[in-house]
Amino acid sequence: MTQKVYLLNYELKEALKKYFDNIKSSFLNKESVSTDECLGRVTSEAVYSKISSPFYNCSAMDGIALQSSSTIGASEKKPIILEEGKNYLLVDTGDPIPKEYDCVIMVEDIVKIDENRIKIYKSAAPWQHIRPLGEDIVESQLIVPSGHVVRPVDIGAMLAGGVNIIEVYKKPLVGIIPTGTELVDPGTDLKVGDIIDFNSRVFSAQVIEYGGIPKRYGIVKDNYEILKETLEKAASKCDIVVINAGSSAGREDYTSDVISDLGEVYVHGVSIKPGKPVIMGKVKNKPVLGIPGYPVSAYFIMDKVLKKIIEEYQGMNQQKEQTVEAILSRRIMSSLKYLEFVRIKLGYVEDKLIATPLSRGAGATMSLVMADGILEVPQNVEGMEAGTKVQISLMKNIDEIKNTIVCIGSHDPILDVLSNLLHVKNPDYYLSSAHVGSMGGIMALKNEEAHIAPIHLLDMESGEYNISYINKYLKDKNIAIIKVVNRIQGLMVQKGNPLGLKQISDISKKGVRFVNRQRGAGTRLLLDYYLRELNISPNDINGYEREEFTHLSVAAAVASGDVDCGLGIYSAAKIMGLDFIPVCNEEYDFAVPEEYLKMETIKELIDVMKSDTFLKELDRLGGYEYPNMGKIVLIK
Amino acid sequence: MTQKVYLLNYELKEALKKYFDNIKSSFLNKESVSTDECLGRVTSEAVYSKISSPFYNCSAMDGIALQSSSTIGASEKKPIILEEGKNYLLVDTGDPIPKEYDCVIMVEDIVKIDENRIKIYKSAAPWQHIRPLGEDIVESQLIVPSGHVVRPVDIGAMLAGGVNIIEVYKKPLVGIIPTGTELVDPGTDLKVGDIIDFNSRVFSAQVIEYGGIPKRYGIVKDNYEILKETLEKAASKCDIVVINAGSSAGREDYTSDVISDLGEVYVHGVSIKPGKPVIMGKVKNKPVLGIPGYPVSAYFIMDKVLKKIIEEYQGMNQQKEQTVEAILSRRIMSSLKYLEFVRIKLGYVEDKLIATPLSRGAGATMSLVMADGILEVPQNVEGMEAGTKVQISLMKNIDEIKNTIVCIGSHDPILDVLSNLLHVKNPDYYLSSAHVGSMGGIMALKNEEAHIAPIHLLDMESGEYNISYINKYLKDKNIAIIKVVNRIQGLMVQKGNPLGLKQISDISKKGVRFVNRQRGAGTRLLLDYYLRELNISPNDINGYEREEFTHLSVAAAVASGDVDCGLGIYSAAKIMGLDFIPVCNEEYDFAVPEEYLKMETIKELIDVMKSDTFLKELDRLGGYEYPNMGKIVLIK
Repeated sequence: MTQKVYLLNYELKEALKKYFDNIKSSFLNKESVSTDECLGRVTSEAVYSKISSPFYNCSAMDGIALQSSSTIGASEKKPIILEEGKNYLLVDTGDPIPKEYDCVIMVEDIVKIDENRIKIYKSAAPWQHIRPLGEDIVESQLIVPSGHVVRPVDIGAMLAGGVNIIEVYKKPLVGIIPTGTELVDPGTDLKVGDIIDFNSRVFSAQVIEYGGIPKRYGIVKDNYEILKETLEKAASKCDIVVINAGSSAGREDYTSDVISDLGEVYVHGVSIKPGKPVIMGKVKNKPVLGIPGYPVSAYFIMDKVLKKIIEEYQGMNQQKEQTVEAILSRRIMSSLKYLEFVRIKLGYVEDKLIATPLSRGAGATMSLVMADGILEVPQNVEGMEAGTKVQISLMKNIDEIKNTIVCIGSHDPILDVLSNLLHVKNPDYYLSSAHVGSMGGIMALKNEEAHIAPIHLLDMESGEYNISYINKYLKDKNIAIIKVVNRIQGLMVQKGNPLGLKQISDISKKGVRFVNRQRGAGTRLLLDYYLRELNISPNDINGYEREEFTHLSVAAAVASGDVDCGLGIYSAAKIMGLDFIPVCNEEYDFAVPEEYLKMETIKELIDVMKSDTFLKELDRLGGYEYPNMGKIVLIK
Repeated sequence: MTQKVYLLNYELKEALKKYFDNIKSSFLNKESVSTDECLGRVTSEAVYSKISSPFYNCSAMDGIALQSSSTIGASEKKPIILEEGKNYLLVDTGDPIPKEYDCVIMVEDIVKIDENRIKIYKSAAPWQHIRPLGEDIVESQLIVPSGHVVRPVDIGAMLAGGVNIIEVYKKPLVGIIPTGTELVDPGTDLKVGDIIDFNSRVFSAQVIEYGGIPKRYGIVKDNYEILKETLEKAASKCDIVVINAGSSAGREDYTSDVISDLGEVYVHGVSIKPGKPVIMGKVKNKPVLGIPGYPVSAYFIMDKVLKKIIEEYQGMNQQKEQTVEAILSRRIMSSLKYLEFVRIKLGYVEDKLIATPLSRGAGATMSLVMADGILEVPQNVEGMEAGTKVQISLMKNIDEIKNTIVCIGSHDPILDVLSNLLHVKNPDYYLSSAHVGSMGGIMALKNEEAHIAPIHLLDMESGEYNISYINKYLKDKNIAIIKVVNRIQGLMVQKGNPLGLKQISDISKKGVRFVNRQRGAGTRLLLDYYLRELNISPNDINGYEREEFTHLSVAAAVASGDVDCGLGIYSAAKIMGLDFIPVCNEEYDFAVPEEYLKMETIKELIDVMKSDTFLKELDRLGGYEYPNMGKIVLIK
C-alpha cells in the first residue's frame, strides 16, 4: 500500500500561470494552408489582397456596353438607334468593358429592332452600371488581421483578392492515452470489475469542440513500463498529450511518476472540486496532462485546463463564457479548501430564473447531461444560502432553458417518455425532471422553483390522494391537478420470487434484504403507512436505511441480487424483468399552479399526455390505468 | 438576346413555405452510427440506457472494503485491528465490492500495522463510500431525447449506459456546381474577363458550418447539355444540390431550364435584396437550388434558404439569430418591392450601440467581411430614418464589438497596419475603419458615431491643418487631436510618366484622364483648393466626376491604365508601382473626443502608434514623417 502525496494544492489560477509559463514556448507554430481549407483556422499573419477585385472594369448588369456620349439627347420622343459592333457590345454581368466604352445600359431599358440594332429612349451617364476595377477589394488592402478565426466570408474575400495560401497557426494534435487494467472498450462483454472506457471517447469529442485534432491510443494496463513507452511515443508524435487516469494517489497511479521520469511535473493537485488530482507536466517540450478518472472531474479539467491549452496553442481568443444571473433554490454547502464547480439545472418560473444544484458526485455523468450550467463556489466560501443571486455559466442555449417545463417531484418512468414525446412534437420544447419525491415536489411549488410537481400522496384519514397535501402545504396558492395515471405499487422481487414473499409484512422476515426510497418520496410514505398499520418497526427491516432515488434504481438493486426486495411500481419491475407482488393502486398526478395552465409549453404537454402515442407507451410499460388522463381538476 | 422572365416574385416566407411543402418528404432519413462518432449528430430516436452504470456496487475511494459491523465501537482510544483477507480487502476507486462487504474506509483513515494488518479509529456506516449499482445511470433510463444534438457529455453517458450505436438523422451531402464560362479556379493565371470561382469555396465552408457535408464539382461551362448531365449526376449522388449561378435572366442562364427539364421549379425569384434571382426546385426528389452569382446575393440565399434545408433535413432545431438593439446612424432608403438585408457595422460609442450601414453592392465581399450584423428592412417600407432604434442580427460576438475602436474618416493605408498591430498586441481589441473622407469623419464625431476620426483638412486662410475645422464644426464638444503623420500628397501617374505630367495644372490638359476622390474627402478639398488657386474649372478636367473612395482605389485605377492620373498619397502610389509627382505635405491626424482618451482601447492604440514595429512599417510604406507621433494636443 505505497501512497504518494500530492505535490501541492495550487489554486487553479496560480497553477495555470505556473504551468503556462513553462509550456508556452511550445505554442504558436505556423503552417501554410490552402485558403479553401482554412475554415476556422487562426491567421498567424495579416492577410492583404494580392490583386484587386474586380481586376478589370466590368459590367454590373446584363445589357450593352457603349460610349455614354453616343446616347446624348435620347428621349421617349426621340429614341436613338444603335448598331451592334459599331456602337455597342452585348455584355452579361461580370463581362469586361472594352476601353472604348464607358457605360452600360441594362437589358430592361433596351428595345430590340432587329438582330443587330436596338433603340434607347434615355441617355446614359458615364460609368453607369460599371463595376470599376477594385470596387470590392483594392490590391494590398487588409482583408483580415493576424489572429483572426477564418469564416466562410473571409475565404471568399481572400480568394477574390488573389490569396490562395495563407499562414495560420498549427492546430494541435492531442494524444489521448486511456490507462487502467480495469478498462475495457465499449462493446466488450462485461464482467464485474470492468469499467467501460468512455472517458477517452468524450475527450476526443471535447478536443474537436475546442479546436484540436484528437488521436486516441489503445487502453494501457496499469504497468509503469508500458505507460512510459506509450507516453514517449505519443509525446513524439503529438503536440499535447493527456493521460487518463492514474493521476491520483492509488496503488497503481503511475502517471505522475512516468511524466517525471520522461520530463517534468509542474503541478500535481489543484484546489478545485471536482478535478483536484490533476497533473500538469511536460515531456519533449509538449504539454502533458494527467487527468483524473472520475468522469465529472475529467470534464472540468478538460474544460478549465486543456481547452485553454488548445486555444492558446493556436492563438485563439478565449471565448468568454456566457453567463446568466439566477436565484439559488437551495442552500449549497462547500468546502473552504476548494473552488467548487456545481452543476446547475435552470428553469424560468414566474419570470425568475431559478438555479437548482444537481448531484455533486464526481461519477455522475448524467448530471452533466442534465446540467444547464455551472456555478462556481469560490475557495474560502463555506456555502451559499437559498435565495442568493448567483452567476451561472451556461452549458445550453438560454432559449432552450426558456422553453423548458421544470418538473420536480416523484419519479415515474413515464416522465422520460413524456419528455421525449413533448420534444418530438415541438422541437423547441423540453421537459426536465428532478426526482426528489412527492414532498420535494410540493416544496418546489411552494418555493416557485417548478412548473409542475408529480405527486402520489395518500391521505391516511380520507384515503384520498394528493388534494389534502396541496390544501395543507400550498394553501396560499391556487393549485390545480392534472390527472395522470393510476398505477400499481407493490413489492419487486427477484425473478421466480426465490424467498416466496407474499405481502408487505414479509419484508421484516429474517434474511430478507430490503431497499428503501429516500425520505419525502411518496413510496416511502406509503411504506411507512403500512408499517404503522402492521405495527412493524423500521428497525426490524434489514435495509430500511438504504435509500434509492427512483423506482428504477430500486428495481436495479433487486435485479443485481444485491437486495431481495423493494417497494415500487409495476412498470419498473417489468423493465428490469422482476416479479411483482401488487400491494395497492395509487393516483399519480401533476400538481400545477393554475396560472401555468395558460403556458404554451404546459398546454402542449397536456396534448401529448392525451395522445395515442403516449397512451400506447403506457400500455407497453404496463401497470397503468388512465381513466382521466390530462383532465384538469381545480381545487379551490 | 433571348430573355427569360422570373416566374414570380414571391415573398421569402411564402416561397419557403411553398418550397418546403414540396421537398420535405425527402428529409429526415435515418442511419445508425457508432456512439463515439456521433458528436453533433441529431438523434432520430430517444436513447435509453441498456445497462446500469456502475453495473455493480463499487468502491468510491481508494481504501479497504469491509463489513460495517466489524467496525462497531472503534474510537481514538479503542482502535480496532483488522486483518486482510479475513476482515477486509484492499480496493481502489472503481473496484467491485464483494457481496460479503457493505462499506469502504478510505485510505486516509487507516493506519497500517504490518503487511496485512491495519488499525481503524472510527466505526464505518453501512454503504459509506460505495457507489451502488446504477448510482449514475439506471438501466432503461432516458439519456437523451429524440431530436437532440449530441454533445461530448452525452457520448460519455451513452457509452456508460451500454449504448454503442445510436440512430441519428443522416447529414446531407450537398453537391455544389459552379457554372460559368468565365469562371476559373483560384491560382489560374488571370486574363481580363476571367472570374475567380471563390463562391463554390465559400459555399463549401458554409455547408460545413450549417452541418452538412460539401461535395464540390468542377466548373461547368455555360452549356445546357453539360450542365444537365452534371446536375443529373449530382442529384443521384447527393442529398441536396446547389448550382451557382445562371439563376438570373442573362443570355446564358440555363439553370432554371435545366432544373425544369430534369425535375421541377417551384419558385424563381423572391422579393429580397440582395438575393432576388434564386431558383428553388427539385430533381430526383432532391432539393436543388439555383443561387445567384453575386457573392453577397449568394451569401444571403445560402443563409436564408440552404441553411434551413440543411437544418430541417436532419431534424435540427433552428437556432434563433442573436440580435441586439442599436441606433441607426444614417438614413437608409429601401425599395418598397423588396425585403432588404443591409450589412451593418456596429460600434459602442458613449454606451450607445450605433449601427452604420455598409456598402449595399451585391458584389462587395469585403462588406460581408467587415459587417458586424444584418438589418432587415421589411418589404413595403421605404426606408428608415437616422436615429431609429433597430434590431440587428449579429454576425460577430458582441464582446468583440464592445472592444472595437470605431474609426470613421479619411483613408490612409496605415489604418490597415494599425488595425492589425492593435489586434496582435491585444487579441481582445479591434480597430474598424470606415472610409468616408475627412468631413465625413468630423460629422461622425458630431453625431457620436465614432471614437476617432482621421482627418487632413487644410484651412485655406491660416494654412493650418485640422484645428480650425474642429473649432468650426465641433465647437460644442471637447475634441483633442492625436498627432499621426505628415504625408506627401501628389499626382499618381503611370510608371515612366508617359504623358510627362509635371504639376497639378497639367491634369486639365487635353487627353489627360483623371480620377477624383469622393465629395467630403480631404484630398478632394485639396484639389478644389488648387483648382481655385489656379483658376481651373472642374469642367475642364476629364474625370472630375469619376469618384473613388480610397487612395488605393485611385492608385489601382491609374495602374490599370484606365485613367492617367489622380491625386493621392505617396504610399498608395508606391504600393501600386506608380510614379509620383509631389504636390504638398499635409498633416494627417486623429480627432478624438477628450473623454475617450481614457478608454483602454484608445490608450493601447496610442501605444501601438508609438511602437517601433509601427514606425518601421511607415518607413517601409514610404512618404511619411512622424515628428509628433501619438502626441495629444488639447484644443480648448
